[in-house]
Amino acid sequence: MIKSELFYRVLYAHTDMMGVIYYAKYFEYFEAGRNDLLRNLNYPYSLLEQKGYALPVIETSCRFFLPGKYDQLLKIVTMMKNVPSVRLKLDYEIYNENTLLVSGYTIHSFVSVRTLRPIKPPEDFMQLIKSKF
Amino acid sequence: MIKSELFYRVLYAHTDMMGVIYYAKYFEYFEAGRNDLLRNLNYPYSLLEQKGYALPVIETSCRFFLPGKYDQLLKIVTMMKNVPSVRLKLDYEIYNENTLLVSGYTIHSFVSVRTLRPIKPPEDFMQLIKSKF
Amino acid sequence: MIKSELFYRVLYAHTDMMGVIYYAKYFEYFEAGRNDLLRNLNYPYSLLEQKGYALPVIETSCRFFLPGKYDQLLKIVTMMKNVPSVRLKLDYEIYNENTLLVSGYTIHSFVSVRTLRPIKPPEDFMQLIKSKF
Amino acid sequence: MIKSELFYRVLYAHTDMMGVIYYAKYFEYFEAGRNDLLRNLNYPYSLLEQKGYALPVIETSCRFFLPGKYDQLLKIVTMMKNVPSVRLKLDYEIYNENTLLVSGYTIHSFVSVRTLRPIKPPEDFMQLIKSKF
Repeated sequence: MIKSELFYRVLYAHTDMMGVIYYAKYFEYFEAGRNDLLRNLNYPYSLLEQKGYALPVIETSCRFFLPGKYDQLLKIVTMMKNVPSVRLKLDYEIYNENTLLVSGYTIHSFVSVRTLRPIKPPEDFMQLIKSKF
Repeated sequence: MIKSELFYRVLYAHTDMMGVIYYAKYFEYFEAGRNDLLRNLNYPYSLLEQKGYALPVIETSCRFFLPGKYDQLLKIVTMMKNVPSVRLKLDYEIYNENTLLVSGYTIHSFVSVRTLRPIKPPEDFMQLIKSKF
Repeated sequence: MIKSELFYRVLYAHTDMMGVIYYAKYFEYFEAGRNDLLRNLNYPYSLLEQKGYALPVIETSCRFFLPGKYDQLLKIVTMMKNVPSVRLKLDYEIYNENTLLVSGYTIHSFVSVRTLRPIKPPEDFMQLIKSKF
Repeated sequence: MIKSELFYRVLYAHTDMMGVIYYAKYFEYFEAGRNDLLRNLNYPYSLLEQKGYALPVIETSCRFFLPGKYDQLLKIVTMMKNVPSVRLKLDYEIYNENTLLVSGYTIHSFVSVRTLRPIKPPEDFMQLIKSKF
């Protein structure tokens, strides 16, 4: 498993009139988490795009256990539990202090950044990932 | 089944540098759809809150088949397929012209708008819903 | 003067924990207004981009008189008060019913959509605009 | 002058199909900056709200010199240049490395968090601010 932990401060912009984080915002936190996981591998997502690949989300799911609040310093845990094939799955857990607020996952497909059509994942990326398992 | 269809114009603000709608934005479109479904029942969500109830999302899921683009006039189809109990589930399909772009669902829990603790759904709301099935 | 009026429904997503529309959201409403103004001229912004032009914002300003709220059907009034030169200015007023909530403006520069470098505005666009003054 | 510097990573979510940061997003970065300035004073904005005050934006302005991009680690410089009276003004500059991308300001009014009506700023807050000038 490859894992990253990122701390992320909740903005007022992320809250809604219920006084809690608006549910769609967690998917941006997931993105912050996966950026962090890839950056920690020395293979940031921007490098993938420079090499002609993109990783759009083709499926996502999220369960909300407890509401997050303004100004909390959330911990975003991102996990790649399996070596990707044509698809890549990431799991996420978001904590405030040690309380789990939400958990979810995203599934991504490797596509050409120009055509958005599916393509084989880059060799060097796959070798790097495999070396971590 | 209770169903609503809402047309929604894609803003530049909703796109990302891949040239398509950013995945988290679809959850805002889902919200627009459920607002519309409730408003069409003459029981808008704001009325629920005035009566002391809120309907936070406790689970959501979405599959992305084709990318949505700037300036498309998307059709958001929202469906309540079953009479809610303590939970309410809504299904969504988003189309550009007649092409399905994404489908998903949200599950909501009735809570007190003050305490955010679970409570029984309002009687008049439940009767209204049942009268439509 | 060229003017458009667009009605726009406030989402829960647009609110914050103060119970009102978060200030940055109004700039998305401004965008909805200018899209509408250009579409009404039969020269939608997407056509500008197809022809190789983009209109990034180089300056914006906004004054907030009264808070907007969830579910209001806001009226976005967008006004082009002068024929653009290398720059294009738009003024905005946002109303709930007949109450002015905010006013502001955006100033845009014509750039190449590929290089983001300033270029002369398209001839046909300028002729169209001039014909309306 | 009271000043804070905060580093903030640009998400894909913040970009648009022009390949740059969408203009409205900078106002969220301004918010991150002012949260940071207040937190550094040991008077975080959340404390203001606990004491019954809110600081809605009543005016804002922003000039965009150069486009920000995905994954940049922006530096948000927030400055309180004068002791606030009934209004509080903050100035912002956002840099990528040492290049200024945008500058702007926000003007805030002290209001009651319950009524959103203007009230006198809290004594202890004002004394704290004055002690820094």
